[in-house]
Amino acid sequence: MPVQPRTPQGVLELTPAQQITFQRMIDTIRRGFERFGYLPIETPTFELTDVLLTKSGGETEKQVYFVQSTGALAEGKRPELALRFDLTVPLARYVAEHEHELNFPFRRYQIQRVYRGERAQKGRFREFYQCDIDVIGKDTLSLAHDVEVPAVIHGIFNELAFGKFTIFINNRKLLKSLLEAHGVAADQHAPALHEIDRLRKVGRAKVEELLAPLVDAARAKALLDALTLDWATASKELALDGMAELQRVYDGTLALGVPADALKVDLSIVRGLDYYTGTVYETFLDAHPEFGSICSGGRYDNLAEHYTKSKLPGVGISIGLTRLFSQLLDAEQRALKDKRTPDFNISTAHRAIAHAVILNVDATLALDYARLASELRSAGINTEVYGGDDKLGKQFKYADRGGIPLAIICGSREHEAGIVKIKDLRVTDTSIHNEHEVPRANVVAKVRELMGTVSL
Amino acid sequence: MPVQPRTPQGVLELTPAQQITFQRMIDTIRRGFERFGYLPIETPTFELTDVLLTKSGGETEKQVYFVQSTGALAEGKRPELALRFDLTVPLARYVAEHEHELNFPFRRYQIQRVYRGERAQKGRFREFYQCDIDVIGKDTLSLAHDVEVPAVIHGIFNELAFGKFTIFINNRKLLKSLLEAHGVAADQHAPALHEIDRLRKVGRAKVEELLAPLVDAARAKALLDALTLDWATASKELALDGMAELQRVYDGTLALGVPADALKVDLSIVRGLDYYTGTVYETFLDAHPEFGSICSGGRYDNLAEHYTKSKLPGVGISIGLTRLFSQLLDAEQRALKDKRTPDFNISTAHRAIAHAVILNVDATLALDYARLASELRSAGINTEVYGGDDKLGKQFKYADRGGIPLAIICGSREHEAGIVKIKDLRVTDTSIHNEHEVPRANVVAKVRELMGTVSL
Repeated sequence: MPVQPRTPQGVLELTPAQQITFQRMIDTIRRGFERFGYLPIETPTFELTDVLLTKSGGETEKQVYFVQSTGALAEGKRPELALRFDLTVPLARYVAEHEHELNFPFRRYQIQRVYRGERAQKGRFREFYQCDIDVIGKDTLSLAHDVEVPAVIHGIFNELAFGKFTIFINNRKLLKSLLEAHGVAADQHAPALHEIDRLRKVGRAKVEELLAPLVDAARAKALLDALTLDWATASKELALDGMAELQRVYDGTLALGVPADALKVDLSIVRGLDYYTGTVYETFLDAHPEFGSICSGGRYDNLAEHYTKSKLPGVGISIGLTRLFSQLLDAEQRALKDKRTPDFNISTAHRAIAHAVILNVDATLALDYARLASELRSAGINTEVYGGDDKLGKQFKYADRGGIPLAIICGSREHEAGIVKIKDLRVTDTSIHNEHEVPRANVVAKVRELMGTVSL
Repeated sequence: MPVQPRTPQGVLELTPAQQITFQRMIDTIRRGFERFGYLPIETPTFELTDVLLTKSGGETEKQVYFVQSTGALAEGKRPELALRFDLTVPLARYVAEHEHELNFPFRRYQIQRVYRGERAQKGRFREFYQCDIDVIGKDTLSLAHDVEVPAVIHGIFNELAFGKFTIFINNRKLLKSLLEAHGVAADQHAPALHEIDRLRKVGRAKVEELLAPLVDAARAKALLDALTLDWATASKELALDGMAELQRVYDGTLALGVPADALKVDLSIVRGLDYYTGTVYETFLDAHPEFGSICSGGRYDNLAEHYTKSKLPGVGISIGLTRLFSQLLDAEQRALKDKRTPDFNISTAHRAIAHAVILNVDATLALDYARLASELRSAGINTEVYGGDDKLGKQFKYADRGGIPLAIICGSREHEAGIVKIKDLRVTDTSIHNEHEVPRANVVAKVRELMGTVSL
């Protein structure tokens, strides 16, 4: 009896066509990071348990996956290894371990999967890609690095073309000074920020209510008024430390070519994590606020205090690509179901890697097909040769289902006449001429021309 | 007290410079696969234990890493998840699970890490990259797909440029018929092939000895004579089924543009795994036979018998990239230690992602630096802006250590004169002019020119 083939819950396994699109997104993100000179690193999927879990307790540890070999399991040992749950702790370990080999400020990007033992739930993944950049300084790190981050974000999401988006920036120092100015006690800053962080999700009225135990009603109202001020109408001369930083990030980002309508100062942007201390970033698709922030991060004081006595301040962002891809897919499916035009074309944007398939019309010409394929590949044209001796109908069906744009046909008649037929399978309108007869010597040029004029 | 930052044994963690080289190797392999139209897939790092371990017992199961969440661990449950130990079992599961959505013959490539609980030992990795292609047919699969495989291998290793290499091909049917002809009993084929597989490692004399219990000495000698025949002097008309297949793979591969000196029929090539049934492939670097085969595979009868009743024959190969990379690194280090010129340049081939760094000569010009960086990036030039207000000497040291080829200098004097200085840091010979003064408007063109003439 065969075993039922299935994947664990909480993973996103893609069809080949989806994988092509996903891979192109990763390529775009990587190019976007490299344009700014970030260096690639990869860390092992598992870390030593005592190295990974330096903080005892906490939400994170509850979600860790532990790893044991067959032998260790049999012996009932405490698991020595655990899967990484983010890319920040491995980065801290990496920088501390290789501190003396690295060139500071160390600018790294890292695109890998991370693992969390989440409860099974729609939209929660147990394995997902993160695409991170961080700049790590030794002792100090200039604000100039904070300035560049929104430009990196803009370059990438502009090229990914998921529609208009806005990068929201804020500064934790400013936020803290506003809390102080509105009478929130220092030991209540963390819970107050936690509530303010939910402003976008639950709305202002709810947050006012949530703030009630922390600060009196009038002050909560004034605080929220201040936080939700429209920057465009606010004075730029506010004499606050955070404001000066924020202004430098804002002006610098515009100088880096980011259009003003894609960048917004928003004093209510908090970022969940406690460890941010200065600039914070969130990014929203204008037409899809329900996705939540698709790219977030900020400035922190010390990356690797658990591993080294060196002070390593940093600034970085992360794109949760698996979650974003799954949201794009869902939005596309919802639109198709409602017979609306989808904003995204994820399922069928790309289906083939091959640009052309040479059909097997006459098996005795196999070596000629091989030579033609070799020529096309040398010219940068991804080419398949149909292997089996199936009927032509079945071969066309294979090409069609696979979304291969061009079929190349050369039977004995064409072979003797020194010609080849190229059929453009993308042209489905029968009134348009879609079959081209070209001399054998011109096949590469014709394929190039056809690939150039009709987009995939 | 900080925790000692360290990685588990048996993983290969790279420096950023090594990672750039590694990433370029992956890019080359991917391009090599895509040139033939293979489709990408990725599978989750962990699979359900009962799905992954369909065969009970065996060497493989002893090396499996099991995965458990914190909760499951506390409850002492049997681990529900396990890390993949190769890409073949996940492919079988994938094809069986998605059988009705896939287009057969299904041509897939997959470049991911796999995990094995190996004993800690030099050259044994617990986490390593595999780069696999397989073509999977439904019911049948034409030999034409076997023909293409050496051309894929040749395209990739030619571009990787690790020196001359030879692809060895053989056919298991031929091998079995030779065993029969030399009187090896059918139930002794598996152990005999196991010994013959070690020919390259332990030498002929040792293998003759190992074969003694299986076949008498004269016949073992005759068998080894036959197996070590030089194909070039052998008759091509051997009337054997396997020979006909082998000849078609050989001739077809040449037609695909693989030069004859890179392809060798070798009747002693076996491939360890039992499940190959026809064509088998191994690839050796001519100057480094001690690496063992760097790319191997073959034809098999049925991919996914544990998951589906469909018959799914296939043919494929695998590159163990982590192992190969580690061997290349070691060979380079050995040569450097012996003061020989290394065959490989792995450590320092690429050090930077950035082509240029704009130095921070005058902090008041920050916005001008940002605008220049933005121009360069738009022109496809990866550009950093030095963030801190360190002395110029320190900034040059940063660029130098990071291997960034060009430094762009624009202080207030240059700014007023409307010029920019570009210093080529690759030129270390002081007698060669390495500083170029150009008008601000010509910076992009000049950087392009410099990047084109002096290679990284």
